[in-house]
Amino acid sequence: MTLFVDMDEVIADTYGAHIERFNARHGTALSREQCMGGEVWQQVPEYRQTIWNHYYEPGFFRELNPIAHSQEVLRELVEKYEVFIASAAMQFPNSLKEKHEWLDEHFPFIHWRNRILCGDKHILRGDILIDDRSHNLETFQGRSILFTSPHNIHTTGFERLDNWQDAADRLL
Amino acid sequence: MTLFVDMDEVIADTYGAHIERFNARHGTALSREQCMGGEVWQQVPEYRQTIWNHYYEPGFFRELNPIAHSQEVLRELVEKYEVFIASAAMQFPNSLKEKHEWLDEHFPFIHWRNRILCGDKHILRGDILIDDRSHNLETFQGRSILFTSPHNIHTTGFERLDNWQDAADRLL
Repeated sequence: MTLFVDMDEVIADTYGAHIERFNARHGTALSREQCMGGEVWQQVPEYRQTIWNHYYEPGFFRELNPIAHSQEVLRELVEKYEVFIASAAMQFPNSLKEKHEWLDEHFPFIHWRNRILCGDKHILRGDILIDDRSHNLETFQGRSILFTSPHNIHTTGFERLDNWQDAADRLL
Repeated sequence: MTLFVDMDEVIADTYGAHIERFNARHGTALSREQCMGGEVWQQVPEYRQTIWNHYYEPGFFRELNPIAHSQEVLRELVEKYEVFIASAAMQFPNSLKEKHEWLDEHFPFIHWRNRILCGDKHILRGDILIDDRSHNLETFQGRSILFTSPHNIHTTGFERLDNWQDAADRLL
């Protein structure tokens, strides 16, 4: 059985990185809790472009923290499923190598054969997709599972995983 | 209708680049004709690793020549099909950005949303795959088309395109 797992906000904490960079540079105290129900920039809309530009900074994707328990649970999932990491990364050319290296460091048990960097996920053929973005899940032909992230807490209509312990319970 | 098109040896002339690099460095006169029916290294088996190492040289993928008529025919195909470039590039981390930039230069009409860099192509869902490697075509669930390259001239069992003019005749 083929299981696709998204990167940003599912195994890599982009949300936390945006908040950390913004706070460090602006002396603010934005918190994850405060951002619940929206994107980070919506808390500071006048800095929307500033926050977007984080994506183009060298090192942004390379330095992300893994999402809690993603490593240990995925290590078990690869025993049971054919696991692929599938990231819509093409918009950020500098991210491609950084994402590859990040996986080498944090998920060395995901072979390069099982990594996909694409622009749009509707071309994926497989059984399960875990993703934080509903637009990716809507076009997937298999079992679509929404992984909870601050921006999607009010999204309905999908099977949902709140965290990786939840994923272990449901998929192992 | 979704059409996946491979990069190396379908729209990008890796074969020619191997021969050119080898000849320039060894004072030899290897030719494409001479390599028909096999891989480049099979003509100089004692240099197998040398030729393999070309893939890891900065600039190798960035400097490839487009395959004859691939640009003009693909420009027409994108009007008729949802065209995606799908390259099994994950084995070569340095190639990722180079391939992206190469597409920006030579195929600017292929949007980043329509680019896929992966490890294994059996995860692709779509209607047609044009590829020079039979192992990619074997696992594809749609119409599999072999694009002629020196190494596959003796391969049988697939619909075949000999060149991009042939592709225009068949697919347009």
